[in-house]
Amino acid sequence: MTAHVRDGLRQEVLDANLAIPQVGLATLTWGNVSGVDREAGVFVIKPSGVPYEDLVLDHLVTVRLSDGAVVDGDLRPSTDTETHRCLYRAFPSIGGVTHTHSTHAVAFAQARRDIPVLGTTHADTFNGPIPCTPDLTADQCVKDYEYNTGRVIVDMLDGDDQKAVEVPAALVAHHGPFTWGTTARKSLEHAIICEAVADIALHTMALSPTAPPPPHLLNRHYTRKHGPDAYYGNPTPAPAL
Amino acid sequence: MTAHVRDGLRQEVLDANLAIPQVGLATLTWGNVSGVDREAGVFVIKPSGVPYEDLVLDHLVTVRLSDGAVVDGDLRPSTDTETHRCLYRAFPSIGGVTHTHSTHAVAFAQARRDIPVLGTTHADTFNGPIPCTPDLTADQCVKDYEYNTGRVIVDMLDGDDQKAVEVPAALVAHHGPFTWGTTARKSLEHAIICEAVADIALHTMALSPTAPPPPHLLNRHYTRKHGPDAYYGNPTPAPAL
Amino acid sequence: MTAHVRDGLRQEVLDANLAIPQVGLATLTWGNVSGVDREAGVFVIKPSGVPYEDLVLDHLVTVRLSDGAVVDGDLRPSTDTETHRCLYRAFPSIGGVTHTHSTHAVAFAQARRDIPVLGTTHADTFNGPIPCTPDLTADQCVKDYEYNTGRVIVDMLDGDDQKAVEVPAALVAHHGPFTWGTTARKSLEHAIICEAVADIALHTMALSPTAPPPPHLLNRHYTRKHGPDAYYGNPTPAPAL
Amino acid sequence: MTAHVRDGLRQEVLDANLAIPQVGLATLTWGNVSGVDREAGVFVIKPSGVPYEDLVLDHLVTVRLSDGAVVDGDLRPSTDTETHRCLYRAFPSIGGVTHTHSTHAVAFAQARRDIPVLGTTHADTFNGPIPCTPDLTADQCVKDYEYNTGRVIVDMLDGDDQKAVEVPAALVAHHGPFTWGTTARKSLEHAIICEAVADIALHTMALSPTAPPPPHLLNRHYTRKHGPDAYYGNPTPAPAL
Repeated sequence: MTAHVRDGLRQEVLDANLAIPQVGLATLTWGNVSGVDREAGVFVIKPSGVPYEDLVLDHLVTVRLSDGAVVDGDLRPSTDTETHRCLYRAFPSIGGVTHTHSTHAVAFAQARRDIPVLGTTHADTFNGPIPCTPDLTADQCVKDYEYNTGRVIVDMLDGDDQKAVEVPAALVAHHGPFTWGTTARKSLEHAIICEAVADIALHTMALSPTAPPPPHLLNRHYTRKHGPDAYYGNPTPAPAL
Repeated sequence: MTAHVRDGLRQEVLDANLAIPQVGLATLTWGNVSGVDREAGVFVIKPSGVPYEDLVLDHLVTVRLSDGAVVDGDLRPSTDTETHRCLYRAFPSIGGVTHTHSTHAVAFAQARRDIPVLGTTHADTFNGPIPCTPDLTADQCVKDYEYNTGRVIVDMLDGDDQKAVEVPAALVAHHGPFTWGTTARKSLEHAIICEAVADIALHTMALSPTAPPPPHLLNRHYTRKHGPDAYYGNPTPAPAL
Repeated sequence: MTAHVRDGLRQEVLDANLAIPQVGLATLTWGNVSGVDREAGVFVIKPSGVPYEDLVLDHLVTVRLSDGAVVDGDLRPSTDTETHRCLYRAFPSIGGVTHTHSTHAVAFAQARRDIPVLGTTHADTFNGPIPCTPDLTADQCVKDYEYNTGRVIVDMLDGDDQKAVEVPAALVAHHGPFTWGTTARKSLEHAIICEAVADIALHTMALSPTAPPPPHLLNRHYTRKHGPDAYYGNPTPAPAL
Repeated sequence: MTAHVRDGLRQEVLDANLAIPQVGLATLTWGNVSGVDREAGVFVIKPSGVPYEDLVLDHLVTVRLSDGAVVDGDLRPSTDTETHRCLYRAFPSIGGVTHTHSTHAVAFAQARRDIPVLGTTHADTFNGPIPCTPDLTADQCVKDYEYNTGRVIVDMLDGDDQKAVEVPAALVAHHGPFTWGTTARKSLEHAIICEAVADIALHTMALSPTAPPPPHLLNRHYTRKHGPDAYYGNPTPAPAL
């Protein structure tokens, strides 16, 4: 059985998954990216435990948003599939989700600390700290564990889509980062930036900062890249020349 | 004289050794991987001090499990050969052994501290801390030093094969990590993960964690990848398409 | 409309920008280099938000020094363009400017600390600490934010061109490093060195140094590479052979 | 004028210099390796300030041991040439010298601390701590600065060739590491290992070790690789097969 998804989605999801090791965020088979087709009511995700060097388009798995059923693909989807599904269902503006075990972001998650806003590198993308969830309860770990992993994120954000838009990343306690965006590619970019700001934050905290950044500076940086007055970038990423 | 070993073992051992520098765990000629053929009563291991860029199949050395005699190969085997042999003899479920001097795992060994379980990245592979042995005594260093290096690991695990299965890694005090698995490749993967979790643990400890991970979370992650209820991965790593 | 700039400037600016990811100082599209043509009264800079892998000569934007008007190019220039322009106008000896978000230099900026002179690696290039600006005020963030970012650097150096020559780098508080030099290439080299000395300084400070370097040592290193008695390097970087 | 040196020396020196950036120990043009021909009374060294990507055999400079005169080559030799010459003259067993500004070794030098022996990774190569010199005096910095840089190393080792053999590395205070060996290649390997053990030592010290390694363990590791009872490696690095 083949489920039809919009043109280009499968290739975009494949490319974003293959980029994880290229940008240095993967150890072995760790990490996964998915992308959603809201109209078709499905999302496309990496299969479980397939080495990146072997991964091809036909390995991708299509999963139904409503109940998590596999509707296309011969392989088992990522074990984290239900976490992705939970996030898609809670936040309508999300088009892609990425999960990694990147070193510095996981360190914050393991310490159960938010990644604080310490400068413009963070504020350019995230309009506030990247929050860390509380621990899952024993009950949440026994049944529907992966779906519940999404639920603790959703609960932390009060199920508020706007919060998910303004800070498109969260740390699951003692686990690691989940990031999202309007597309699979965007969710991957947020994973890259989440790791970069965690790395810089660790060094900053070692230097014992004496002054938090002024809110007007952070706000300026967030708004120059996001919202109606944004002036960063170019209409198309790179014009054909 | 040529000792016959099962098909594919020599290539697997060569590939696993060549992967050490590719995954960034080697400085110069440091590190070695071996794989065992239980039926033939021998294991195949990297020769001592040969640069990875020169290493070819014919350099590999075959060693007898019962007495450590070289039964095939023109070169001297790794100086760590007797440590490998000791581990194979103590733990029947081991099919491959890897030794590296990877930076963060060695730091824990030099500090004579276990690598603690701080999150799911660790619990996905290791069902408990990666333990660090006590120092070898002066006597243990004088005679059969390398075999005794294996013995302190075996003693620490009470010679219990099940313990070796659940936590397939150990740190030798002031020395470094030894890891093992059902195959040479698996033992290498455990070396990669051992280094990754040591790196993340160091950062986590710098952030002063206030809460250890809940046991139910760790257990969930270990059991979803290991044992009768495991549901991670796919039957074959990647189907031919 | 095409503005004429001196031969080779555009290629030099392109090469310096393309070198940013090659030397590991870029995440995604972050970072930018420009080079000036004083005679033509313009500078050439990277466009905003174009991925490095897509960047070609025709993407570069030429900006007028006197008023910041774009005089050549179809794309929007880097959002940091006005900061570059401010530095060119204040310091006549500057021929190129580089901005990055390199990890360790940003950590110092986020901690609002100068990068101290801890050894000859620093003194070879910078004749004093790399200073960190105070925070921009709310007013400075509202209007002409990017130009004001340059202004806080200029003010910190008392608008003194000689100071800009002796320490060709500055950190903007809670933001990151700006470096400059006689050419675009030189400004990039200073960005590389700024990041390297920040990295080493962080490790040095972790070791709790008990003795600052003696001034006569630092002076010797700075003067052997700079000024009338310099004897480092060769007349031409590498003779044609 | 052409000075004859023994066959292969120039190629060996070129290869060792080109390896510096390949093994990640170089920033820009930093670092240099030389190799000596005792019979001819000269050594061959990298020219000053030539980018590694441009460096070819004809750039190398031959310098006379007795007085430092350039006897072959069109370029100015490395500014550190006199330091190399001082070491060759003091220690007859040295065949090659390497100088780098590698991150972690420089951090120890800047903190003016020895790199302590914390485990077998260190003891495999260095039979004791890698010592850090005192600061050069103002007088030592004014006249013959580079030769005096070698002299503080020689004085620290009491001009004792045997000490130079047992610990083939030293840190110059607030500057960085100099390493040596029987050949140019060996001096480079010691630079690589010096950086690796400095990196691991920094992490170990962050973990607050409670127990120094036992001397019998360190001694065993040093002697299994060095001296009459060594049994590491193979007669030739890799046999032709």
